[in-house]
Amino acid sequence: METTDDVFPEVTLRLPAWVEEFSSGGDRLYRTVEDRMRFAVELSRLNVRNGTGGPFGAAVFERDSGRLLAPGVNLVVGSGCSVFHAEMVAIMIAQRVLGTFDLGGDSLPAYELVASTEPCAMCLGATPWSGVRHLVCGACDEDARAVGFDEGAKTAEWAGSLRDRGISVELSVLREEAAGVLREYAEGGGEIYNSRQGEDLP
Amino acid sequence: METTDDVFPEVTLRLPAWVEEFSSGGDRLYRTVEDRMRFAVELSRLNVRNGTGGPFGAAVFERDSGRLLAPGVNLVVGSGCSVFHAEMVAIMIAQRVLGTFDLGGDSLPAYELVASTEPCAMCLGATPWSGVRHLVCGACDEDARAVGFDEGAKTAEWAGSLRDRGISVELSVLREEAAGVLREYAEGGGEIYNSRQGEDLP
Repeated sequence: METTDDVFPEVTLRLPAWVEEFSSGGDRLYRTVEDRMRFAVELSRLNVRNGTGGPFGAAVFERDSGRLLAPGVNLVVGSGCSVFHAEMVAIMIAQRVLGTFDLGGDSLPAYELVASTEPCAMCLGATPWSGVRHLVCGACDEDARAVGFDEGAKTAEWAGSLRDRGISVELSVLREEAAGVLREYAEGGGEIYNSRQGEDLP
Repeated sequence: METTDDVFPEVTLRLPAWVEEFSSGGDRLYRTVEDRMRFAVELSRLNVRNGTGGPFGAAVFERDSGRLLAPGVNLVVGSGCSVFHAEMVAIMIAQRVLGTFDLGGDSLPAYELVASTEPCAMCLGATPWSGVRHLVCGACDEDARAVGFDEGAKTAEWAGSLRDRGISVELSVLREEAAGVLREYAEGGGEIYNSRQGEDLP
């Protein structure tokens, strides 16, 4: 008979209630890239304001229609899971909604990942596996690094490496607005939770 | 009043029952690096045999004692989640066991991630954020690529970039045994689920 010591816990990814509320209205269409980015940036801002995580928001949209498939916010500290960056959260929920690990499947419309800040090395690596066909970014790596966030080991050619895989990339959409949320967070004394490892850097 | 259309589903990471059973015996210590890799490789083999996912296993161990903290297997297809690579699963469960997003926290012993195959770009990016201090790999990137798995955009210096962050790396531990599971899987007609994107590569 197994003891409880032998049982490994489940891990559950659950959006904060305010995200559900803020993202509600399933009929709403986000027609322009700025509409979509404004939504992701607002998620990043509200995530800080509601005390549910770091200053990062993301969402998966149907590329052509602008329909929201899944929102995501950074839930690392509150969930106790270093994997729960905004992009990962949006991707995981989007795949759960559709019931497939591949958002690029033949029978599906094209999906777009919109991120309030350029993805870190993990989220960048996750992007091709997700099946999204387009990536839209707001604040730049240097905006995140400027306030102390570590983006990980990315090559200077990271956007090109996605394009080589058939994923188009659009950068600096509403960059100032997105970077402003990062600065507000840092100035407000927000926890730069990934920085301990960064301190080891030369 | 919100309709059900407005509610986003939870995502639950749950180990297959056989992993619980195979990993039971909380007192068992995996003293050598080969003991630990044998465990990860056996997870990869059993994952295929039990039909629960791709040929990849991983685990987080206490570095000094050899105590198992959390096992992981690839659950991409069965869970419908492209994030659920073996390393990500082991990291997420390990953090859930300890109740922290940082396995490298000051009050904790050093933890080691053991992976039956060198991590893909996503898992590589996730490694520093997890807080593990050591990474041990079995089969090499080229072994995975040889049977059709796409490891993503990794630089040739990926191990060095981890070492620069204070994470030591040990490669090719029981490589032949680990690579053998990859070959068996491919020869058995197993789904190379990440390869669609890879086909777009030049």
